[in-house]
Amino acid sequence: MNATILTIGDELLIGQIINTNQAWIGEQLNLVNVRVGRMLTVGDDMQAILTAFTESWSRTDIVIVTGGLGPTHDDITKKAVCTFFDSDLVSNDDVREHIEEFMRKRNRKWSPSAEEQTLVPRKAGIVWNPLGTAAGMLFSEGKKRFIVLPGVPYEMKEMMTQSVIPMLAGLVDGAVIRHHTLRTTGIAESDLSELLGNIDELLQGASLAFLPSPTGVKLRISVHGTEAAAADRKVAEVEARIRSKADKYIYGAGTEELEEALGRLLLTQGKTIAVAESCTGGLVLEKLTRISGSSAYVLGGAVSYSNSAKTALLGVPAALIEKHGAVSPEVAEAMADGVRRVTGADIGLSITGIAGPTGGTAEKPVGLIYTGYADASCALAVKHQFAGSRAVIRDRTSAAAMELVRRKLL
Amino acid sequence: MNATILTIGDELLIGQIINTNQAWIGEQLNLVNVRVGRMLTVGDDMQAILTAFTESWSRTDIVIVTGGLGPTHDDITKKAVCTFFDSDLVSNDDVREHIEEFMRKRNRKWSPSAEEQTLVPRKAGIVWNPLGTAAGMLFSEGKKRFIVLPGVPYEMKEMMTQSVIPMLAGLVDGAVIRHHTLRTTGIAESDLSELLGNIDELLQGASLAFLPSPTGVKLRISVHGTEAAAADRKVAEVEARIRSKADKYIYGAGTEELEEALGRLLLTQGKTIAVAESCTGGLVLEKLTRISGSSAYVLGGAVSYSNSAKTALLGVPAALIEKHGAVSPEVAEAMADGVRRVTGADIGLSITGIAGPTGGTAEKPVGLIYTGYADASCALAVKHQFAGSRAVIRDRTSAAAMELVRRKLL
Repeated sequence: MNATILTIGDELLIGQIINTNQAWIGEQLNLVNVRVGRMLTVGDDMQAILTAFTESWSRTDIVIVTGGLGPTHDDITKKAVCTFFDSDLVSNDDVREHIEEFMRKRNRKWSPSAEEQTLVPRKAGIVWNPLGTAAGMLFSEGKKRFIVLPGVPYEMKEMMTQSVIPMLAGLVDGAVIRHHTLRTTGIAESDLSELLGNIDELLQGASLAFLPSPTGVKLRISVHGTEAAAADRKVAEVEARIRSKADKYIYGAGTEELEEALGRLLLTQGKTIAVAESCTGGLVLEKLTRISGSSAYVLGGAVSYSNSAKTALLGVPAALIEKHGAVSPEVAEAMADGVRRVTGADIGLSITGIAGPTGGTAEKPVGLIYTGYADASCALAVKHQFAGSRAVIRDRTSAAAMELVRRKLL
Repeated sequence: MNATILTIGDELLIGQIINTNQAWIGEQLNLVNVRVGRMLTVGDDMQAILTAFTESWSRTDIVIVTGGLGPTHDDITKKAVCTFFDSDLVSNDDVREHIEEFMRKRNRKWSPSAEEQTLVPRKAGIVWNPLGTAAGMLFSEGKKRFIVLPGVPYEMKEMMTQSVIPMLAGLVDGAVIRHHTLRTTGIAESDLSELLGNIDELLQGASLAFLPSPTGVKLRISVHGTEAAAADRKVAEVEARIRSKADKYIYGAGTEELEEALGRLLLTQGKTIAVAESCTGGLVLEKLTRISGSSAYVLGGAVSYSNSAKTALLGVPAALIEKHGAVSPEVAEAMADGVRRVTGADIGLSITGIAGPTGGTAEKPVGLIYTGYADASCALAVKHQFAGSRAVIRDRTSAAAMELVRRKLL
């Protein structure tokens, strides 16, 4: 089963927005064995959209269209869909009810643009949009499907996950593709590659992609086959061989982030954590609390961006900062211990360093970071020297800090 | 002058990699008045590549192809180019010399893949690759240009900047495109659309795109013309008309983020800020400190995820939390005032709420947020009801909190 992903919007063509929708949809389709043959982007232009519809619908079984479904004047996808499928627009009662409910909850008044959003092509099925007012549309011809979704990423993703992917999974037969991703941190791509050794012995017909990012290297195992159980078994074998060599760096699988893996460990062990951050400015706490339910183990913490805040919020002695400097192992330990004591958490984690691009010196260059750990029985600090932009250094630091606690807990 | 950007690679189709090259090239072409009509992505498949070449070259004046020029087995772009332009491959002496020099500098030995990289189509002009070994290729027909570049972003960008963009700028005549983006927050897309009123009166021939996101709606004004000064004037006129209606919601222009706009204001007014966050878990502090130099106005703050942390770190009386609940205007005010006092900042900002998806009740549903503000003379709290996923609610909240301070400072 072959698909085209068609994204619509002038903002994409002029590079104002990076097309993350396209990649996300590609990934999701791949997971249910729908093979994406092409991705196409055109602007908010009726003729260009109609040409793209014709091309895509004649070439592939599945066409996923996103963008241009909002209520403003530049959103012309719905008109193009009507022209293409020779349908008129009618006000849909179910959609109207959903939009009324949606606006009532937000204390917003009914408006001409809300009225406009109730209109859908008479020939279209509805793809429900639980998080917004623009309804999705579905056209079918035999096993072929033409699906139109809004471009707002969180609305589109919810609709894909809830409605589109389950529907497409039901249509696919035959070829089996299995992907499985292992997530590592604390080791560079080239070192990981060497650690894994001879790649043919390791894979035995499977394939492996190294996907580096500031927070770690993902290893994606892929197996193509015709039988699900055999493909799953092959993936499991390759995973076992990889783990026998690199297990200590692997914190999770699939889409699990390091903050989830760490949260799971804390929850299992019944431990609480608090964090004191300097140069990361709250990034570690922000990541830990992305996880719903994290209030069970995250007590909170402090962002002590200034020296006075280190003293006022964490009780780090001013004299200690004076003596060793704010970026030092001594202050990292004192911050970790301070945040633990102030909040009453079992574990204190701290970060102090220089994220740059300014503020570095010869002895303390940009990218110098100390992470600190404290529990009831010990306090320690680890030195790191990271490279990259301010954002990359902060990201690497956040991963190193969380990984420090994860290793301690294991 | 009309262009297609064609990117090649299976990794793009399965969503393993987000296509940032495409957006970057789109932006660069736009700046020299080359209008991108479509962006297309196909896999490492000969037939798909040839079809894409035919389509693109027949439709547009300029075709920029990236990807598939490396020496590994799945890189077949060069063969496809030879087939398409009916040319054979020859070893190019200048390219060989460049690769030899390149490898000598890096202490790398000559190899079969290096030899392979010296081959270019006989009919192609060379686009120099100062940062790598894969030469770019150029084919011309009258004013039409077909350009093939490697997919490695930093190599491609250097080649675009050094060679391709100057060449294309020399080909373009007449047409002028101007884009200008105004950034709003605190108003929904449909409300903003209504506030702006009659769109034809507003634009008078220019065009306007609404680009919504959880943190606000961007308004992009576009003017196509033949004379630069007139186009700039027209953009300025449309901006003035938009500002006369919606100025209070506009925090910045171009690529400026809300945290930059707020940081600029704080710096100008010589004020410092501290933040106490509950459900956003550090997101506001993390955003404020993304900006290099933010240590001049961000003192830090606390993430008081638990009630005990609100008391321990911020001095919020346990009795107050007991009486009104942690998610209440009273606690929001006390948090803002507390973080201000503890850190000695001029301004205290606070957030308390329910980011979901769990933790909501009938009286205090998911998405209920209070933002609090305190300075030397006042303390206040604002109620919000947001919708969306946990991540979206946190993002909306962070924007609302920063916007509260921005309005206060104006």
